[in-house]
Amino acid sequence: MFQHPPLFFTHSRHFLRRRRRRHHNYHLSTPPLLHRFLSTISHTLSHPIYTIWAANTGLGKTLVSTGLAASSLLSSSPSPSKLVYIKPLQTGFPLDSDSAFVYRKIPQILLHRNPQSTLLASNQTLNVSMQAEKLKIGNNFSGEVRTSKNGFGDFGYYEERRLGIGEELGSELICKTMYAWKEAISPHLAAEREGANVEDSDVLALLKRCLEIGVGSKRNGGSTVLSLVETAGGVASPGSSGSLQCDLYRPFRLPSILVGDGRLGGISGTISAYESLTIRGYDVVAIVLEDHGLKNEVPLLSYLRNRVPVLVLPSIPKDPSDNLMEWFVESKTVFDSLNVIMMSSHQKRTDRLHEMPKKAQEIFWWPFTQHKLVSEEKVTVIDSRCGENFSVHKVKDDGCITEMFDACASWWTQGPNAALQIKLARDMGYTAARFGHVMFPENVYEPVLECAELLLQGVGKGWASRAYFSDNGSTAIEIALKMAFRKFLVDNELLLDTDENSIELKVVALKGSYHGDTLGAMEAQAPSPYTGFLQQPWYTGRGFFLDPPLVCMCDGVWKISIPGNMKADNVILEDTSFKSRNEVFNKSRDDSSLAEVYSSYISQELKLNSRSKKLSHAGALIIEPVIQGAGGMLMVDPLFQRLLVKECQNRKIPVIFDEVFTGFWRLGVESAAELLFCQPDIACYAKLMTGGIIPLAVTLATNDVFESFVGDSKLKALLHGHSYSAHALGCAAACNSIKWFKDSQTNPNLIPQQNLLTELWDTELVQKISFHPKVERVVSLGTLFAVELQVEDSEAGYASVCATSLLLKLREDGIYMRPLGNVIYMMCGPCTSPHVCLQMLETLYTRLNGFRHDKIEKDSEIQS
Amino acid sequence: MFQHPPLFFTHSRHFLRRRRRRHHNYHLSTPPLLHRFLSTISHTLSHPIYTIWAANTGLGKTLVSTGLAASSLLSSSPSPSKLVYIKPLQTGFPLDSDSAFVYRKIPQILLHRNPQSTLLASNQTLNVSMQAEKLKIGNNFSGEVRTSKNGFGDFGYYEERRLGIGEELGSELICKTMYAWKEAISPHLAAEREGANVEDSDVLALLKRCLEIGVGSKRNGGSTVLSLVETAGGVASPGSSGSLQCDLYRPFRLPSILVGDGRLGGISGTISAYESLTIRGYDVVAIVLEDHGLKNEVPLLSYLRNRVPVLVLPSIPKDPSDNLMEWFVESKTVFDSLNVIMMSSHQKRTDRLHEMPKKAQEIFWWPFTQHKLVSEEKVTVIDSRCGENFSVHKVKDDGCITEMFDACASWWTQGPNAALQIKLARDMGYTAARFGHVMFPENVYEPVLECAELLLQGVGKGWASRAYFSDNGSTAIEIALKMAFRKFLVDNELLLDTDENSIELKVVALKGSYHGDTLGAMEAQAPSPYTGFLQQPWYTGRGFFLDPPLVCMCDGVWKISIPGNMKADNVILEDTSFKSRNEVFNKSRDDSSLAEVYSSYISQELKLNSRSKKLSHAGALIIEPVIQGAGGMLMVDPLFQRLLVKECQNRKIPVIFDEVFTGFWRLGVESAAELLFCQPDIACYAKLMTGGIIPLAVTLATNDVFESFVGDSKLKALLHGHSYSAHALGCAAACNSIKWFKDSQTNPNLIPQQNLLTELWDTELVQKISFHPKVERVVSLGTLFAVELQVEDSEAGYASVCATSLLLKLREDGIYMRPLGNVIYMMCGPCTSPHVCLQMLETLYTRLNGFRHDKIEKDSEIQS
Repeated sequence: MFQHPPLFFTHSRHFLRRRRRRHHNYHLSTPPLLHRFLSTISHTLSHPIYTIWAANTGLGKTLVSTGLAASSLLSSSPSPSKLVYIKPLQTGFPLDSDSAFVYRKIPQILLHRNPQSTLLASNQTLNVSMQAEKLKIGNNFSGEVRTSKNGFGDFGYYEERRLGIGEELGSELICKTMYAWKEAISPHLAAEREGANVEDSDVLALLKRCLEIGVGSKRNGGSTVLSLVETAGGVASPGSSGSLQCDLYRPFRLPSILVGDGRLGGISGTISAYESLTIRGYDVVAIVLEDHGLKNEVPLLSYLRNRVPVLVLPSIPKDPSDNLMEWFVESKTVFDSLNVIMMSSHQKRTDRLHEMPKKAQEIFWWPFTQHKLVSEEKVTVIDSRCGENFSVHKVKDDGCITEMFDACASWWTQGPNAALQIKLARDMGYTAARFGHVMFPENVYEPVLECAELLLQGVGKGWASRAYFSDNGSTAIEIALKMAFRKFLVDNELLLDTDENSIELKVVALKGSYHGDTLGAMEAQAPSPYTGFLQQPWYTGRGFFLDPPLVCMCDGVWKISIPGNMKADNVILEDTSFKSRNEVFNKSRDDSSLAEVYSSYISQELKLNSRSKKLSHAGALIIEPVIQGAGGMLMVDPLFQRLLVKECQNRKIPVIFDEVFTGFWRLGVESAAELLFCQPDIACYAKLMTGGIIPLAVTLATNDVFESFVGDSKLKALLHGHSYSAHALGCAAACNSIKWFKDSQTNPNLIPQQNLLTELWDTELVQKISFHPKVERVVSLGTLFAVELQVEDSEAGYASVCATSLLLKLREDGIYMRPLGNVIYMMCGPCTSPHVCLQMLETLYTRLNGFRHDKIEKDSEIQS
Repeated sequence: MFQHPPLFFTHSRHFLRRRRRRHHNYHLSTPPLLHRFLSTISHTLSHPIYTIWAANTGLGKTLVSTGLAASSLLSSSPSPSKLVYIKPLQTGFPLDSDSAFVYRKIPQILLHRNPQSTLLASNQTLNVSMQAEKLKIGNNFSGEVRTSKNGFGDFGYYEERRLGIGEELGSELICKTMYAWKEAISPHLAAEREGANVEDSDVLALLKRCLEIGVGSKRNGGSTVLSLVETAGGVASPGSSGSLQCDLYRPFRLPSILVGDGRLGGISGTISAYESLTIRGYDVVAIVLEDHGLKNEVPLLSYLRNRVPVLVLPSIPKDPSDNLMEWFVESKTVFDSLNVIMMSSHQKRTDRLHEMPKKAQEIFWWPFTQHKLVSEEKVTVIDSRCGENFSVHKVKDDGCITEMFDACASWWTQGPNAALQIKLARDMGYTAARFGHVMFPENVYEPVLECAELLLQGVGKGWASRAYFSDNGSTAIEIALKMAFRKFLVDNELLLDTDENSIELKVVALKGSYHGDTLGAMEAQAPSPYTGFLQQPWYTGRGFFLDPPLVCMCDGVWKISIPGNMKADNVILEDTSFKSRNEVFNKSRDDSSLAEVYSSYISQELKLNSRSKKLSHAGALIIEPVIQGAGGMLMVDPLFQRLLVKECQNRKIPVIFDEVFTGFWRLGVESAAELLFCQPDIACYAKLMTGGIIPLAVTLATNDVFESFVGDSKLKALLHGHSYSAHALGCAAACNSIKWFKDSQTNPNLIPQQNLLTELWDTELVQKISFHPKVERVVSLGTLFAVELQVEDSEAGYASVCATSLLLKLREDGIYMRPLGNVIYMMCGPCTSPHVCLQMLETLYTRLNGFRHDKIEKDSEIQS
């Protein structure tokens, strides 16, 4: 079932059960978020919303909710307050109903404390399984019977109660149960047995609506509001679909209260539950537990290093006939403290979110950013990431947290969906705990060995035999150049030449390519805004830079534009124009007349350049296969690149593929070399290699390249390394991601036998966009969709701000993009649903219609 | 108590308890490993050793141990086998004794299955609290009463039993309880109440001895051996000192069996316990749980993605009079399966450990390594790291895992002790789950904001106002150079010069300094083996390289050696010779005659160089403050560096401090600038900044430097960045580490008021070593202790292998070092106990006595 079988095959016997495929499958490998669309998740910050979790079942979560609710409703007296209690998943219904308990108990507590209390209380159960409905009918059912949906009835079950008079000014308690099942078992079992299933995305959508209750109350009436979401069972108990609840609710990442375990063994359970929440990115604001005389709070506080408060509730009476009024009185101070902690934590959080843009402006020095052009409002406050989405803080409407699709894939690094992110998080914890970082040279440890094996069996398959690790694309390129030059010198016997000063080594590279920001990598690119004296006084440009023919879709057709300096008179139209992108990649083009044009241009240029200076040699070829990213998402004719590689290899010039951007499914295949049908001597990988979580780079090389560094002296070895070479965390992340993306069990976009991704960008809509009058050209390939906007010549280029207004609109739509001058692009991950891509394309198309690239005021610029 | 107070102050009331200081403190912030010395931990791989953990108390760990023991003892029949059962911590003794249960039950099971079974069984309790002893005496006590130690009696309690005859060939069951207390509560409470305390280090030392039982049995008699270590309570239940057991036993990192929870709510508890083990670096080989009819194994297998088997045991009879014989029959197949899984997993692990060196040699390309000089036996297999120690695999004696102190601090990156490592691991999980990586420019997110704040309040305090993040020291230097040059051009109004080609910018740098491996960083260093044409054909050396005066201890005295080209005739001896290191750093030296010599040399050189070429400018000064690391741990006279900084700043030449090596307590202070009493314009940090866990670098700059990039055009901005700029995991690690090292609650070496580390290297012993005839010079400062070995001139320098035999001996002693040519060094972390440092120095001194730097065979070289 999995590409990689389980580590140990266990002999199946009576009591040994393994996962069974069935209709109701547990969606842990296919995450809850996979099928969500844009902008599903958002919630207000105008009032505090907390999730109540527990270390186990039966620890008194509902008592904590009730105590908190009472404290909140009473604390704000005489000003009115509102308490929203949400129970998303309830089993054992209607006998067990936590929202009914809160609904019944709160008025009792209020009256017990103050007979003059006023309150409007309501309790509603939104979706009840048909099995549970049958029990319910005949009790206090008062609604209208509607048809069943997915095994749920919608009986409009609702009850309401008033305390005192003058409820207009009084407090309000609103209780909601979202989904209820009859059997008192885990929701995933109840859902299965009662045939009443609910998708995670539906739970999230309904929860979002429930969380909107109370929004605005504070503004209009000045009342304080608190919302509580009470989970079912323990933190990692399965929800209705089988997803663990800590995973299910993660997109909201609500601050959390953990109800701990005060019993014998409870320290361990509480710490483990806390850790499960923590390694999913939740903030646990406080732990509260029942006193069992064991002082479990002492080791808990020690473990927490006093950073999280631990509160102890008095012993809960075991007599079921006890109405708990005494207990609530006794525990009042604890709940009041907890309430204060929660309010203060919420205030701290919102204060911090508000001050962040200003502080950032004061102390950050952002790369590639003209600070004078960034106003405070333009700073994006990112509260978290979940899969492909950012959760950002918006100041409007008293503040809220809203999702945005990270369509620039955070500088093209991103790959994980929500499920891979959780997996990576656990593995980062494991690897940091097992290895931290250990030094690499002359050593071996599991993550680096597995990583090297996967690289050589994957992107390096068929040609590479050695893996040289470094930290980022730029360092990987510097290493690649050192490798290539040595190989060239050895092959051409130039090391015997005693006068080293007489040899000048250059690279052959393409105009518009970009290989990194350190000096060595910059020297391999043609002059550009990045390389000027103002930026890098040491840049000289040590290359022979060729003009590449480019490919793009214009008005629905894929076309090749041939540079003017190629003599292309004999090329027929059929050789430069294609109905589909696949034709562009067709190997049969090797026989076209265009191929001859390319070959003769390349030969000529290589001759010309090596003639230009007697002692200057083309010591390496470096190309970004197929797409030149930073240059403006330029698609180079793959035929041209293939012929260039061939011509260089014929001349013993080592070939470097810079796959930092193109590698690991970015272009729909694991290595973009597959699209060129040829192999390099050296290739560089970074960005997506770790799944986009931490920096790691690798330079792969053939055995021939490696051999040119082998000898008797250490001085012949490649003396280049960084402190964290092959760091364990990076290698472990890479192992996870490499396997995840190429496994059709985890990557639904993979077409298994073909080893390529399904088409992510809707072909028709792409074509439609290419016809748009404001669009110059379009490129779609793998996870990339790019559009060059039509602009006046004066507005084109890297410093262009013409796309700003369009991108600001798209950010309002929940799509976070950054431009490359007048080129804009959307980039998804290898696992992103094509439905999400379709929605993004549709949104873009709509916005293009309204787009006028006026002159933009400076302070609203979005920089590339 | 803590430098940073708890996030929320909770109002203390009746039921709200906070941590109290008392005699018996819970050692979670001061980790169990802090006081361990060299080479404490090792265990055999000749037979499998497993730890039995449980998700909670009362889940049947001992039944699992018993079932496994029976399966193991029977499965190897007719060949004999040995089962070692170890219960480190037992409470409720003697009424509860898990080892007594196993001891009694196994013979019953064996006889029940085969009345002809033969077995020699024994049970021993090694340390019993005096309170429990009192109960025990009068029962089957048969030993000798000895004196109490730490509240424990040593009554030599031992029982033994034989089944059948011919026990010489029969199987053997050896049960050991290490420590036992009377009360049936958590060990930390029992230890406290009964006044019988045991340190973690003692538990580990005794466990190590118990794990040696059975070593060699396989070799001599061919019998199979299995050792089981059964923990108490849940995975995170406190041990006797209060340390969580999952932390306590971590140094052994034994493979684990987790007894899960089959009850309602048990899925969550099992998953959380699994995660607590995982984020401490344990490998859980299988989960086993009791059937409660809820099919908890189905969601568990789904969560585990079928990678870890989950086995289900039949329901355990609740009747206490049941002798469980029927149950053991029913569960036989499960235990047999589990046994097979454990054996096969152990075999897989050892096979992999054995093949790793060969595979590494075949596919790695190690940096700074001449592969021809690395034989397979010289490859170190690192199984894990715990704090400052590696756990490495040794092939001898049928294989074992042994600790070594990482005395090269993994290329000078390391800082964490075991407690910080666990904290960092949890935080890496949290940060990966919360943020993964999100892009930096124009954005703000919590870890990067906090990190920038901590940097500016810490190492940048008093001068820096902006933080520019990148990936490693080398990129941080390239950025620093770009900053400095721009500042220089702006200050000197050279940007108005239209002919950029007429300006040549150079750096002022010191000979023997090293700033990184990318081309731009290399250009700033004087010619060396790293910069030759063979290594970097593009290197030209764009610097004015000055000869620095060096400081070291020779024959017990700190001395300054002044380069020949400085006219130092008027310098008196008192100015170049010091009794203590502190005198070298004394600011009063500014008034010495040597200061004049330095100043005039510097002025002359700066004049000379700027005269040498009409248009070449010294556009930046770059220095490694105090210690030039890669150059051979050269200590530069701080007076010289201070004067150099002053002279450059007087000439409007921006000053860069390369603190990549020296920063963050490496030299005993947070920033080495504190030792120079002057401030730079720009400084670079990396390595230890993240606590040595993942790559992250920062370039700090003054506001003046920043301002030279501010303007109307994006083209004026600093256009340098890497994909993972300011990645969240790196920033979060940095936040943790920066705070940890400077908090005396977590760093026992910190002298709080003085903001410096205590002297880590014993002054007397350092002096003694400096007198050693084979020692040329010694430098000790902060976490660094370096020795230059006396060699013939021909053997000195980077490629020297003279130290090899000495370092191989030290590796046998458990100290992992790498040389820098004929310079060897030991480096610890900021929290490492001075006792450990003392032990290392003593070991080195002993080995120096036996050291003869013969010509070494090539294949035994250890490379720098």
